[in-house]
Amino acid sequence: MADSAGRRKRGGGRAGNAARRGGAVIEQMPWRLPVNADRPTEPLDEDGVNAIHEGAMTILEEIGVAILNPEALELFREAGCSIDGDIVRFGREFIMEMVGKAPETFTLTPRNPDRELIVGGKYILFGNVSSPPNYWDMEIGRKVAGTREQCANLLKLTQYFNCIHFAGGYPVEPVDIHASVRHLDVLYDKLTLTDKVMHAYSLGRERVEDVMEMVRIAGGLTHEEFDARPRMYTNINSTSPLKHDYPMLDGWMRMARRGQGCVVTPFTLAGAMAPVTMAGAVAQSLAEGLCAIALAQYINPGCPCAIGTFTSNVDMKSGAPAFGTPEYMRATQMTGQMARFYGLPMRSSGVCAANVPDGQAMWETSNSLWAAVQSGTNMVYHAAGWLEGGLIASPEKFIMDCEVLQQIQRYMEPATYATTPDDIALDAIRDVGNEGHFFGIQHTQDRYTTAFYQPFLSDWKNYEGWEAAGAVWTPERAHHIFKDIINSFEAPPLDEGIREELATFVAKRKEEGGAPTDF
Amino acid sequence: MADSAGRRKRGGGRAGNAARRGGAVIEQMPWRLPVNADRPTEPLDEDGVNAIHEGAMTILEEIGVAILNPEALELFREAGCSIDGDIVRFGREFIMEMVGKAPETFTLTPRNPDRELIVGGKYILFGNVSSPPNYWDMEIGRKVAGTREQCANLLKLTQYFNCIHFAGGYPVEPVDIHASVRHLDVLYDKLTLTDKVMHAYSLGRERVEDVMEMVRIAGGLTHEEFDARPRMYTNINSTSPLKHDYPMLDGWMRMARRGQGCVVTPFTLAGAMAPVTMAGAVAQSLAEGLCAIALAQYINPGCPCAIGTFTSNVDMKSGAPAFGTPEYMRATQMTGQMARFYGLPMRSSGVCAANVPDGQAMWETSNSLWAAVQSGTNMVYHAAGWLEGGLIASPEKFIMDCEVLQQIQRYMEPATYATTPDDIALDAIRDVGNEGHFFGIQHTQDRYTTAFYQPFLSDWKNYEGWEAAGAVWTPERAHHIFKDIINSFEAPPLDEGIREELATFVAKRKEEGGAPTDF
Repeated sequence: MADSAGRRKRGGGRAGNAARRGGAVIEQMPWRLPVNADRPTEPLDEDGVNAIHEGAMTILEEIGVAILNPEALELFREAGCSIDGDIVRFGREFIMEMVGKAPETFTLTPRNPDRELIVGGKYILFGNVSSPPNYWDMEIGRKVAGTREQCANLLKLTQYFNCIHFAGGYPVEPVDIHASVRHLDVLYDKLTLTDKVMHAYSLGRERVEDVMEMVRIAGGLTHEEFDARPRMYTNINSTSPLKHDYPMLDGWMRMARRGQGCVVTPFTLAGAMAPVTMAGAVAQSLAEGLCAIALAQYINPGCPCAIGTFTSNVDMKSGAPAFGTPEYMRATQMTGQMARFYGLPMRSSGVCAANVPDGQAMWETSNSLWAAVQSGTNMVYHAAGWLEGGLIASPEKFIMDCEVLQQIQRYMEPATYATTPDDIALDAIRDVGNEGHFFGIQHTQDRYTTAFYQPFLSDWKNYEGWEAAGAVWTPERAHHIFKDIINSFEAPPLDEGIREELATFVAKRKEEGGAPTDF
Repeated sequence: MADSAGRRKRGGGRAGNAARRGGAVIEQMPWRLPVNADRPTEPLDEDGVNAIHEGAMTILEEIGVAILNPEALELFREAGCSIDGDIVRFGREFIMEMVGKAPETFTLTPRNPDRELIVGGKYILFGNVSSPPNYWDMEIGRKVAGTREQCANLLKLTQYFNCIHFAGGYPVEPVDIHASVRHLDVLYDKLTLTDKVMHAYSLGRERVEDVMEMVRIAGGLTHEEFDARPRMYTNINSTSPLKHDYPMLDGWMRMARRGQGCVVTPFTLAGAMAPVTMAGAVAQSLAEGLCAIALAQYINPGCPCAIGTFTSNVDMKSGAPAFGTPEYMRATQMTGQMARFYGLPMRSSGVCAANVPDGQAMWETSNSLWAAVQSGTNMVYHAAGWLEGGLIASPEKFIMDCEVLQQIQRYMEPATYATTPDDIALDAIRDVGNEGHFFGIQHTQDRYTTAFYQPFLSDWKNYEGWEAAGAVWTPERAHHIFKDIINSFEAPPLDEGIREELATFVAKRKEEGGAPTDF
């Protein structure tokens, strides 16, 4: 019965799959904005929260942050901050007043309004890996520089999986495209291959403006409509310790002015760019993040901002960054407490230091993803496809991570812990009594196909069944699914006129030389 | 500096390692009883707790449990329970009164008193994989029936790793030893290769009595000393749904009488031996467990008991058990809430359905281990070495799991979230300011070697370094560590007279024929 019920749900097995449209290589969970109802794990008591807040405020007031953007410097001067060369010192009243203007929750609406996201509150949203310069897959079998084709394939995975909510930065840097026009080609690919929320790198005026314009065109929006609500977002990193550079702040201010999503994520590696002690690294990270958010709110009160964490530790042997460590988990949880203290949505990541999609990759990634859940994170960057501390993107890892993400989404369904009389099921227990089993009874039959999470990658066969099926380890199974998804991918609908307008814009901007590459 | 600091800590690298005693193949965390200070994740609200409690009590009162042991049946009759054939119905007052006599915390003291465990409260303790009939390692490369040598090797790992607190059942069934005398040989191996807390299978009078006697001999104890406090424990499984069989209850009562540890763990697979709905499966599991604990408390009020959970779901396609699933996690968390409601220590497990130590194995095991943490579990069975739903023991998986267990132990160290002024480190942040880095400063130097978890298996090198070192994936690295540990293993000290007494006992009991094998 179990078997036949399973097959029924699968709609006729292989034949049924083939008959369906190409996108249905696997049966996946439907698109939804997962709600994380768990009470967050909070290692800090009230004194601890106050100590970190006091630390962050003292850093801002007494030590200050280098602001390497004259326009931002001028705005801080105008706001009454103390300026000493390019060092800005901020009164805590100013910071807290500005941060208080940021909304606790905001929406991001991409070209397909059905993909609108709510950032903040109890929502937890996942994005694809972003920005690795290199690529690894099982067919190539070694680390290679990223290409446009690999990037496009990872974008297809981004679109395909319902558990991926937003398209972050480039899932791999296509270094076969010249940097001056890379953003144009990749944004064209992103906007035609996916209909999910877009991101712009804050790497110079042209890139940010071009991406905003392309997102506007893709959405069929007037400039007024684009500005009316957040359509996309940027993520900036401070140059830790305690510095914001020119282009990041430039993009930040452009996005803030037009009311688009602004995420600031200091990369505070404890023992390198931040104190070796985790609470100190978190305090410094918050100081760096809060002053950027204050700037955005000063420019455009109420504009959508989120605070990110990328606090982790280094390898004691080599100084290399480590990810998904116990210290990383605690830093993420502490930042979650502080984000709630400041009333800001929060971003963290799905990360690992492993070089290939093996056991280490998955325990490190699991650690970071569960820390995201425990911390009350709202946006999980790099949630699928990341290897080697972010230097490699891998489609097999992408597929493996999506299996974990789906499990997290299922974990969040209240059905898993519901206690209605139907769930306690006394009648079923009474019927079965002290003999027999629950396989065949009505209570089971009524619920069988939806009662449990059904994996698309995990192999739950026994050893003999698994061996008979080829004894395939997880990454190779993931590779096959990757190929099947790419080979049968269908892009989301896009008006042909809009596609032409995008292509024309790209051609025009390429003719103009694209963006300067002296960043 | 990072590098040299790391090397200093490693005590001279390879040469230093080789100079040390054989046991130091890796640098591992010291022996300790980890304290889990996190507030548990509690999916149930008060109504939910009451609904499951009410369900469990109704099962006990109205449906009843088959008690296939005449002695136990007689005891329940004497206690005033309603007996109908072999079905016992229990008043909730009786159950709650008896359960109330069980201690919230107890100790287990093995032959080496330095290895004493505290079970309950905020302690979380880990045990080795127990009872798989089969074995897999990378050298053999396929599933094979377990042998005494493999069992002994896994016992050496059990002893070697400080993060493994107790020696559960046989880490693999040595099916090359006849079942009638298997317990004698394995207990001899266990008691000579390890000095950690022992377990007895409740599979017939002889086995339980023999193991108690051997644990007594190994500890150099009189019978009175043995009985004076818990020296070991058993774990029984009910025959779900709602049945306790003869030999399990026999062993249970023998252990309870002598004040030894009694853990009851129903194996309630939702949709098979329990309702397809998780809360119903948990309610049934609790009913099965609570009546066994009531029996133990009726026999010997105050004897040490713990309630276990093994509630998981089946694969919808095959009916095979699945482990480390979202539903498994929620069942574990709900059971944790109920264990606190009843004031009982709790056992759960580290489990997976994967057949080999790959990515799937680690995300499923991570899910189950984090569920153990989130649920407030006190004893984590099968925490290292389990594959194929418990049908395979693997030394590579054992090593990989120990890396995860150590990370969980480090995660629990308050240093990871401390917020003293030294942790906030304002002076360090002030010193470094907006330029430079934290590598070289005193605050970092003073803490560098202890600030972060240092892995023994995770490879944090970059891809090129990892490739230069042979491009070795995690299971193969684990295999090498396994071999190194076995090859240099030194058994813990044991008085020669005691060893001879154990050997003599084994020889005598073998001559007598051991235990019947008709169970």
